[in-house]
Amino acid sequence: MLLLLLDLAGTFVFGLSGALLAARKQLDAFGLAVLAVSAALGGGAVRDVLLAAGPPVAVTDARYLLSALLAAAVGFFSAHQIQRAGGTVRVFDAAGLGLFAVAGTAKALAAGVPAVSAVALGVLTAVGGGVLRDLLVGEVPLVLRREIYAVAALLGAVIVAVADRLGLYGPVAATAAAVITFVVRLLAVRFDVHAPRPVAPPD
Amino acid sequence: MLLLLLDLAGTFVFGLSGALLAARKQLDAFGLAVLAVSAALGGGAVRDVLLAAGPPVAVTDARYLLSALLAAAVGFFSAHQIQRAGGTVRVFDAAGLGLFAVAGTAKALAAGVPAVSAVALGVLTAVGGGVLRDLLVGEVPLVLRREIYAVAALLGAVIVAVADRLGLYGPVAATAAAVITFVVRLLAVRFDVHAPRPVAPPD
Amino acid sequence: MLLLLLDLAGTFVFGLSGALLAARKQLDAFGLAVLAVSAALGGGAVRDVLLAAGPPVAVTDARYLLSALLAAAVGFFSAHQIQRAGGTVRVFDAAGLGLFAVAGTAKALAAGVPAVSAVALGVLTAVGGGVLRDLLVGEVPLVLRREIYAVAALLGAVIVAVADRLGLYGPVAATAAAVITFVVRLLAVRFDVHAPRPVAPPD
Repeated sequence: MLLLLLDLAGTFVFGLSGALLAARKQLDAFGLAVLAVSAALGGGAVRDVLLAAGPPVAVTDARYLLSALLAAAVGFFSAHQIQRAGGTVRVFDAAGLGLFAVAGTAKALAAGVPAVSAVALGVLTAVGGGVLRDLLVGEVPLVLRREIYAVAALLGAVIVAVADRLGLYGPVAATAAAVITFVVRLLAVRFDVHAPRPVAPPD
Repeated sequence: MLLLLLDLAGTFVFGLSGALLAARKQLDAFGLAVLAVSAALGGGAVRDVLLAAGPPVAVTDARYLLSALLAAAVGFFSAHQIQRAGGTVRVFDAAGLGLFAVAGTAKALAAGVPAVSAVALGVLTAVGGGVLRDLLVGEVPLVLRREIYAVAALLGAVIVAVADRLGLYGPVAATAAAVITFVVRLLAVRFDVHAPRPVAPPD
Repeated sequence: MLLLLLDLAGTFVFGLSGALLAARKQLDAFGLAVLAVSAALGGGAVRDVLLAAGPPVAVTDARYLLSALLAAAVGFFSAHQIQRAGGTVRVFDAAGLGLFAVAGTAKALAAGVPAVSAVALGVLTAVGGGVLRDLLVGEVPLVLRREIYAVAALLGAVIVAVADRLGLYGPVAATAAAVITFVVRLLAVRFDVHAPRPVAPPD
């Protein structure tokens, strides 16, 4: 029950990020709803499709879609206020990141895929929606460019996979992994830490 | 039988829209074929993947792919003429929109998903191909930006879902929903109506 | 066994192409890994999803993902050297193209889809990863624009489908199809041959 609430909250916050980007790009009401839904549900949907485990929960359980559409409605009328509350949104977004990374990895492990695939699918769950959101408005996804965002999700996913391998996966490990992702993400924002870049090849 | 013919006609017209955009963007013959196929079959394929109901009809029934490839061939040799017949193409496109929205929603409802998901998948069926088409040439999808296009599809999808809930869904309701989508779309073009935009947040 | 090795080699080379593009675009380490994985595994994953034949091999067999990640690691540290060895990379890439086109078509035929769908899925296997790779950095996919790349893959896929129809498909036909794709691709690069373009419509 708590997990479902957290999951829907994560969906809502990710949906807000889509609505906000749509408002900034001056999409219309429909485009805004598409961006909110893509950001909120895209990562999990792609994960479920790749696991070939039946229709994604985003399709079968209406609460997820409604949560994303609620975020769209809020974003449509209150883009200003959300923007001003940027710090608060970022905290919720970091929480969603940790939650989605952990839940995605656990779901993939439960489906019996190798640990390395499960970690990749956990990260995909956490960042895939944001990638889709950015692509839809013609931007190179933020997560590929600069921030310690995916790396935080990767850390959470690895912790889940290692705990699972050691037979230690349970509520405690899951919570620890989500919290560590959350904290690393917020510290990276606070201290402006970035992932390293490769040396550029000559043109 | 009539339904299949209408479906293939819709596929053909959506394929033309892809071929035309490819010609305008000066893609080569292969790129043009990819855009035609994506525009024609993309929406339905994504719907079928999300419903996890086996391979998309676009893969199992060769007539759909051939219909899209025929549109590509016509577009390759006759982009000028199609462009000049813009009004006629728009009428067929509006017909395809109504048809795909209704068929997509009905298929999703038949698969047993919640009504709100079925409506979303109906709209996705109708506009998903166009979104894919535009993304492939680096444009923010037209449907997210300005036009009463998705909204017309949404209207048709909602009518199907409501009729289904009331136990009234059948050939009459399906036809009514498709015709209403068609008419709303054409009226929106004729009177230059647009969907509302959110207030832009400060930068 | 040889097939698996060739497949993993193709995965690695396609992964290199993603890593190289990421280095050129100055993505960070994570973005580079995403581009390598997308280029290496994207085409086959989309094919498997469309065939609805369970989770893609890229998910169930960790060696594919590890091969793509190895390419990412090599690309991260050696973008300069790979760029300088451009000709060599192109030879491997052409080999991967032939291999993926043949394997993709054969897999689709084995799943029982119509020949025209199998050919389309074979080409998708060969070029889909590159399309995804280019889209992720906001570029119109190279393969849609200029090169005899997809056409070489198409040739290989058609040979497989025709051989299958004639009851002649086997190791000899597969090898011939892959080699012909490989040679056509290299000749097209060598002699700078391009696919034809449609006449542009008036604006």
